[in-house]
Amino acid sequence: MAAAAMSCSAFAGPLCKSGVGRTCTLYTKYSEDGDVVYEGLSEGQLLNSLIDQADLDCGDTGDRRLRAYRELRDTASSHWWQTTFDLKHRSLPALPMLIYFLYVGLFVFVTVGVYPHIFVDCRGQKCLLYNLSVPVQLVTGAMFFLLTFRTDLCYSRWWEGRVHWKLLDIATTNIVLNSIMAMGNNNLTKAVARWAIAYPLIVKAHIRKDGDKKLRDGLRKVLVEGEIVNVMRSRHRPNHVLTQMTCIVQQAVDTQAMTLMWMSQLTSDISNLQLYFAGVDRIAGSPMPFAYTSHSRTFMMIWLLAVPLSIVHDLEWLTIPVSVLIGYCILGIEGIADEIENPFGKDINDLDLDAIVRSCTGGLLQCVDTIESIEDDVALW
Amino acid sequence: MAAAAMSCSAFAGPLCKSGVGRTCTLYTKYSEDGDVVYEGLSEGQLLNSLIDQADLDCGDTGDRRLRAYRELRDTASSHWWQTTFDLKHRSLPALPMLIYFLYVGLFVFVTVGVYPHIFVDCRGQKCLLYNLSVPVQLVTGAMFFLLTFRTDLCYSRWWEGRVHWKLLDIATTNIVLNSIMAMGNNNLTKAVARWAIAYPLIVKAHIRKDGDKKLRDGLRKVLVEGEIVNVMRSRHRPNHVLTQMTCIVQQAVDTQAMTLMWMSQLTSDISNLQLYFAGVDRIAGSPMPFAYTSHSRTFMMIWLLAVPLSIVHDLEWLTIPVSVLIGYCILGIEGIADEIENPFGKDINDLDLDAIVRSCTGGLLQCVDTIESIEDDVALW
Amino acid sequence: MAAAAMSCSAFAGPLCKSGVGRTCTLYTKYSEDGDVVYEGLSEGQLLNSLIDQADLDCGDTGDRRLRAYRELRDTASSHWWQTTFDLKHRSLPALPMLIYFLYVGLFVFVTVGVYPHIFVDCRGQKCLLYNLSVPVQLVTGAMFFLLTFRTDLCYSRWWEGRVHWKLLDIATTNIVLNSIMAMGNNNLTKAVARWAIAYPLIVKAHIRKDGDKKLRDGLRKVLVEGEIVNVMRSRHRPNHVLTQMTCIVQQAVDTQAMTLMWMSQLTSDISNLQLYFAGVDRIAGSPMPFAYTSHSRTFMMIWLLAVPLSIVHDLEWLTIPVSVLIGYCILGIEGIADEIENPFGKDINDLDLDAIVRSCTGGLLQCVDTIESIEDDVALW
Amino acid sequence: MAAAAMSCSAFAGPLCKSGVGRTCTLYTKYSEDGDVVYEGLSEGQLLNSLIDQADLDCGDTGDRRLRAYRELRDTASSHWWQTTFDLKHRSLPALPMLIYFLYVGLFVFVTVGVYPHIFVDCRGQKCLLYNLSVPVQLVTGAMFFLLTFRTDLCYSRWWEGRVHWKLLDIATTNIVLNSIMAMGNNNLTKAVARWAIAYPLIVKAHIRKDGDKKLRDGLRKVLVEGEIVNVMRSRHRPNHVLTQMTCIVQQAVDTQAMTLMWMSQLTSDISNLQLYFAGVDRIAGSPMPFAYTSHSRTFMMIWLLAVPLSIVHDLEWLTIPVSVLIGYCILGIEGIADEIENPFGKDINDLDLDAIVRSCTGGLLQCVDTIESIEDDVALW
Amino acid sequence: MAAAAMSCSAFAGPLCKSGVGRTCTLYTKYSEDGDVVYEGLSEGQLLNSLIDQADLDCGDTGDRRLRAYRELRDTASSHWWQTTFDLKHRSLPALPMLIYFLYVGLFVFVTVGVYPHIFVDCRGQKCLLYNLSVPVQLVTGAMFFLLTFRTDLCYSRWWEGRVHWKLLDIATTNIVLNSIMAMGNNNLTKAVARWAIAYPLIVKAHIRKDGDKKLRDGLRKVLVEGEIVNVMRSRHRPNHVLTQMTCIVQQAVDTQAMTLMWMSQLTSDISNLQLYFAGVDRIAGSPMPFAYTSHSRTFMMIWLLAVPLSIVHDLEWLTIPVSVLIGYCILGIEGIADEIENPFGKDINDLDLDAIVRSCTGGLLQCVDTIESIEDDVALW
Repeated sequence: MAAAAMSCSAFAGPLCKSGVGRTCTLYTKYSEDGDVVYEGLSEGQLLNSLIDQADLDCGDTGDRRLRAYRELRDTASSHWWQTTFDLKHRSLPALPMLIYFLYVGLFVFVTVGVYPHIFVDCRGQKCLLYNLSVPVQLVTGAMFFLLTFRTDLCYSRWWEGRVHWKLLDIATTNIVLNSIMAMGNNNLTKAVARWAIAYPLIVKAHIRKDGDKKLRDGLRKVLVEGEIVNVMRSRHRPNHVLTQMTCIVQQAVDTQAMTLMWMSQLTSDISNLQLYFAGVDRIAGSPMPFAYTSHSRTFMMIWLLAVPLSIVHDLEWLTIPVSVLIGYCILGIEGIADEIENPFGKDINDLDLDAIVRSCTGGLLQCVDTIESIEDDVALW
Repeated sequence: MAAAAMSCSAFAGPLCKSGVGRTCTLYTKYSEDGDVVYEGLSEGQLLNSLIDQADLDCGDTGDRRLRAYRELRDTASSHWWQTTFDLKHRSLPALPMLIYFLYVGLFVFVTVGVYPHIFVDCRGQKCLLYNLSVPVQLVTGAMFFLLTFRTDLCYSRWWEGRVHWKLLDIATTNIVLNSIMAMGNNNLTKAVARWAIAYPLIVKAHIRKDGDKKLRDGLRKVLVEGEIVNVMRSRHRPNHVLTQMTCIVQQAVDTQAMTLMWMSQLTSDISNLQLYFAGVDRIAGSPMPFAYTSHSRTFMMIWLLAVPLSIVHDLEWLTIPVSVLIGYCILGIEGIADEIENPFGKDINDLDLDAIVRSCTGGLLQCVDTIESIEDDVALW
Repeated sequence: MAAAAMSCSAFAGPLCKSGVGRTCTLYTKYSEDGDVVYEGLSEGQLLNSLIDQADLDCGDTGDRRLRAYRELRDTASSHWWQTTFDLKHRSLPALPMLIYFLYVGLFVFVTVGVYPHIFVDCRGQKCLLYNLSVPVQLVTGAMFFLLTFRTDLCYSRWWEGRVHWKLLDIATTNIVLNSIMAMGNNNLTKAVARWAIAYPLIVKAHIRKDGDKKLRDGLRKVLVEGEIVNVMRSRHRPNHVLTQMTCIVQQAVDTQAMTLMWMSQLTSDISNLQLYFAGVDRIAGSPMPFAYTSHSRTFMMIWLLAVPLSIVHDLEWLTIPVSVLIGYCILGIEGIADEIENPFGKDINDLDLDAIVRSCTGGLLQCVDTIESIEDDVALW
Repeated sequence: MAAAAMSCSAFAGPLCKSGVGRTCTLYTKYSEDGDVVYEGLSEGQLLNSLIDQADLDCGDTGDRRLRAYRELRDTASSHWWQTTFDLKHRSLPALPMLIYFLYVGLFVFVTVGVYPHIFVDCRGQKCLLYNLSVPVQLVTGAMFFLLTFRTDLCYSRWWEGRVHWKLLDIATTNIVLNSIMAMGNNNLTKAVARWAIAYPLIVKAHIRKDGDKKLRDGLRKVLVEGEIVNVMRSRHRPNHVLTQMTCIVQQAVDTQAMTLMWMSQLTSDISNLQLYFAGVDRIAGSPMPFAYTSHSRTFMMIWLLAVPLSIVHDLEWLTIPVSVLIGYCILGIEGIADEIENPFGKDINDLDLDAIVRSCTGGLLQCVDTIESIEDDVALW
Repeated sequence: MAAAAMSCSAFAGPLCKSGVGRTCTLYTKYSEDGDVVYEGLSEGQLLNSLIDQADLDCGDTGDRRLRAYRELRDTASSHWWQTTFDLKHRSLPALPMLIYFLYVGLFVFVTVGVYPHIFVDCRGQKCLLYNLSVPVQLVTGAMFFLLTFRTDLCYSRWWEGRVHWKLLDIATTNIVLNSIMAMGNNNLTKAVARWAIAYPLIVKAHIRKDGDKKLRDGLRKVLVEGEIVNVMRSRHRPNHVLTQMTCIVQQAVDTQAMTLMWMSQLTSDISNLQLYFAGVDRIAGSPMPFAYTSHSRTFMMIWLLAVPLSIVHDLEWLTIPVSVLIGYCILGIEGIADEIENPFGKDINDLDLDAIVRSCTGGLLQCVDTIESIEDDVALW
């Protein structure tokens, strides 16, 4: 032990010297005798519960919903009708549509039903509102540009979110794989694997602003009670995990379980994790500029309110279905932008974070399998 | 052998210590006496079958279809007519068009043939549907923006898929080239080359959700039976290949067939493979947001249904050909987006994955040629 | 001391040889006896004031305004009305709108109220201005394209600013974390942490062209008086901080508090800081090309002035509300572009730099906590 | 020699051991006595011919055409007229325009000249085709969006091609510069330089599918006959060059003419070459999706055929010039997309590959100058 | 000297062996006795003139014009009027506008003034040109798309130019800072600094195709006569500077003034310089494809010529002001694209290269200050 401490101070950082710090609770546990005693349940129980969960959830590689959608696409015709007629998953701002419907109905009732001689059937005189279709058409282009550009920008946010989340997934897998290559089947390897599995859970909760209770439940399958407590009371939970991993890596270097070259590789993997987290966080944390969203919505409202005014003279009662259809189409475009602006929510058009996290966990568990199998071989020897 | 094992434990990871693990079946075979006995067929037969296949398939550098198209472009005028009149390869959503044709025919038959006095020839009265062209024109811009933006986004997905697949190709070539530079003509080099050739096949099957049988047949030309079995029963097949390659690299380092510098290079190549696979996978696995696809399609349907209503008063029987032509043009735009949204399918507008895989295999086989030629020289000495 | 100087000259740069240079005031202080005497207040007081500030400001992870907005989004309906009716935060170029309103009012008063027989009610003759709606409609598309493209480009500047600022945040965190890993709880680590906390403050002041007094007040919480004086009189303040950090790193290498590998890591982190600063600086320092802004604005002005002329014949008194609404919608689009072109200003639609800086400081203080906790453990030993 | 072989096997790859392999013909030549005997002409003759060529071709730094265009721009007014009236270099799909002209002429002759009472002058009855302008206007927007988006995408391909080709240029220069820094004036340096000069020639021929004869002629100025034969019969010529370079680098390491650090740098430069080649190759090898090109062209054809139908009633004989002008403008947009989709062709709007290659060669020859000058100095000693 | 030469040949490249080569004139000067004798003026004079220049020019951190514009923006209302009414800096293609004005005037004079009965007041007959507004409106959208897309692409070129120029600036600063860290206050450091200050000047002259005389004058403040002569007669001046820097770095390694790690860092900085230069060069050297510019301009010309024809029937004499205003707006859009396509020119909308170069020089001089201050400290010892 003393020799290890010395060699440690010789070529690694000084953090391992203290080794009992509050932040590194986990890691000091290993330093006692190279083994771990968990408060709640044993290491074997932990990993078993992980594998059970994987057999239930991720045996099919997750992403069920996406795959279901993808499969639909391959049978082209049914896909066609489903996307066109499916009611549940489309963007449908129900309340604004209802209000708009009432407004149109009332307006047409008044103009056509009550005062037709003023608005519709004017007997040689100029009807009120007659020429409103000209200015409405004039600004229509501007509003549509604004709406579709906004949709386009929101899609690029959605895709960027998807890309960074996938990279986060890969980076965690890389960390576990590299740990296995560097240290073999080792308690420290398992610790890294457990923190790597916990990371997407914690990031998900951080981004969705989930309640502490839900996160605590999720973590209980991978972390022990003391670790969870430390996670819950840290200032910035995702960073806490990264700090823990770095602690473990340095511990491994100190006990010569890992060469310096692998340490450099793992440090860079951990720094990549932070980078991808930043990519995810800036999308979740920076909505479109308020002025953009608010002005394009106000413009749309003014336009929609003007539409029945501009067509009532020509279409009379037909104004109601026509306006409502137009309202549905335009509000729907706005709805798409709204749905996909923040891709980390919980509705159907958002990224299925739960499935991705599960798939990610499944990938990591394959690595754990690798460790187990090597261990078995060793056991047979 | 014992010395090698010791030196191995000194500066490489511990995985090589066990060396008989289930995951590393392949690699332990080499460790016996530096040579390999395959279950099914000998190494020479394997490589010969590869070269035969290459002579048949990739002697012309693959990509036949793309080249055919490209050559057409150079003879400009024929290209012009071909792209304009070619019937087979264009986007043509046949069923929706048929239904739309029936709808238009029926509608015009009713309005013009049966009740002309209501809709068309109204004798001084306002015709029903007369003024519908105004609201249809009003929203036309919005629908076209939405459609073309979607096509644009789909094209960027298609291109991104192409880029990442090409990078995957290069990364596999790099791995083989670097293995040859690092280890020369060696059984481990051949093993890396075989796994590198298998990788695109496995990724292709993973992405297309091909059946196991087809993949098994493809792999039989490069892998031996035991390896194939391991591939088939792994949780995540592409990752399995990467793990195998890392095993071989570490084995090479342990037996001092490879310097540490080359090991670092190959580790980074393998990690690049994973990155490019992620790029391919996220395009195959994340279709456009459902709300986007579904709303733009519904909007288009509503618009198409309204078109004959808005022109029947002016065009009467001409409404039928005009509506059908408009329907063809608009449904075709939608069809392009549909075709290229997932570039990894099997129809003509998708990337010709088979050809790319074949071309990739051809490139790798040139490396194998290099090995062979060096070997021959040695044999002549 | 002499020995240290020699070892220093052996493998590190020569800057540390002189060691008393004006630029490196801070760093020579440490070299005396490994401890620091500050002019104004002690190290402990400095860090305590930091932590107090953090408890007040960043205990809630900052970004209050963004989070408030984000939370609104999750309660969809209220969000809808807020973005539509909120008056305070939208883009509203008040003065131009007022002038436009007066112009429209005056114009309509003259044409409809005073000379109706010339402009509106022309008794069989061609009215003056009658056909102006045709050319106005002709160029409407061009103006809208120009406006929305400009808005789009401005959004991409806004987002790029956000991305680079976030990366700056991460890079400072990385420097502090890596310093802790490399040197443990050490005076040099604290110095790096203090400069890292000062960096975003200085960049913010540099970019916003804040007065010196404000910056000086902000810095007083992290830097001592002598350091602040040096910062204030340097030619390029952000670069001054980077030079200071490099000095400290080299000092650490000379006194063997840091290995060469960590030095290489920290040098690369510091060079990243410069890169991200450049990203921020080029957005703050390069407005859109003058010709672009000015021509699109002039085009818009001409168009807006022509609108009432083109509709007054048809709409008469209605021209006033219609023109004003159109003016609001179009000026608003221009206003969005104006608001978000430079995302580092102080109004509501700009990035909340203060909150981001505070959140960044909070993240860094967690690192300081880590140091403290290790120190406490050591103290208990 | 024996000692060199041994040291070689000690720290470099095993490829150099064989050293006489078919692939490495060139490189074994140097290993005999450190000098080279070329089949055709001496080293001096080779480099002299290179310099002569450079004095003729690249003394003016190449890119003549681009510079001519750029200079035109600076004299703004003449540039204006040249771009507007220049006949030679614009996009002008001549055959389709001729056919369109004939179609319009025939159609107008029939409708206006032969059957005016049906189509034009209908005496109170509804003219046939009268209302066709409404549906044509309806879909005009969609077609224009599709066309200009396609042009936009093609431009981005053109620019990406330009970027990657420039990077390829830089990477070859880097290889030569680094070789000189690493090895000085040396036969191996000259060999690397010659292959680096050959690389752009070979890539150009590969991408343009030039005939073998042309390539052979071009290569004769830089490579000797044996090398050319090997290039011509390799499966993948660009990769063949990269393999040759790697061989030379390894040879240099074996004979200790190069340190390991420079070897690592050169290996990374060579791998960059491959990356940039991939960037160029994927643009040359992946035309736009067939469905995209073909549908947008068909849509355009339908629209153009419908234009005279929709305006003949109003414009009568004027239909001919108007339709032809419209046809020219629209076919021209299509023509731009067609011209720049593949930027590596031979017409005026493509990248002037020949000039870029020549400029690239000129830059490399400056490096050769450097070698020569050092050699002269040595000779004077 | 002999010992240095030997150690040099041992671990660095061989270039330093010759040491008197034409290319490395500068660097051999240092190798004599570690000091330099300049032809024209002493080192002190050189640096003093630099600092004087900096006090005059860059004391205010350069970028005066940009800052003036930026400050205007902060006082929103004045900014509004300035951008709208400012006459000097907007895009205004004067000659084309004049010609267009004459054309419109002549055309209206003929049609309305001379032959009104044919074109305007047709007494029951169809007027010639009456219906031309329909086809003009038909293609208006296409032309506007083309124009604004081109403006958009040109803006992205402008921004990319800005980004790369800023990166070039940073890379030169990095080289100087790293030299100081690596070598301290040293003649070689000063030489690197002087070449780094010369680099932006030379790149600017290269890109703007400035005359040799102007460049020579600019360089006289940083380089000595012999160096300037070498720069002027090199084939590729920017590359010449990079070669000189590499020479100095290698010299420093040979004389053990720099460790190998710093050499690797500086080599990578120099290679970055080349990369950013390439980014700048490809924008300056590749104008938009000729067919794009020329067709969009011709299309615009045809459209502008057709505008008065299409509105003269309705607007009569009003055609003149209306056409001229339309012409101004549309030609102005074209003018923006023209102005910003090449951002490295000399007019107001281009990047203010002179100011950026001056600011860059100012940043570098701060580094020189640092050297000086250290030197002073040493002098005081």
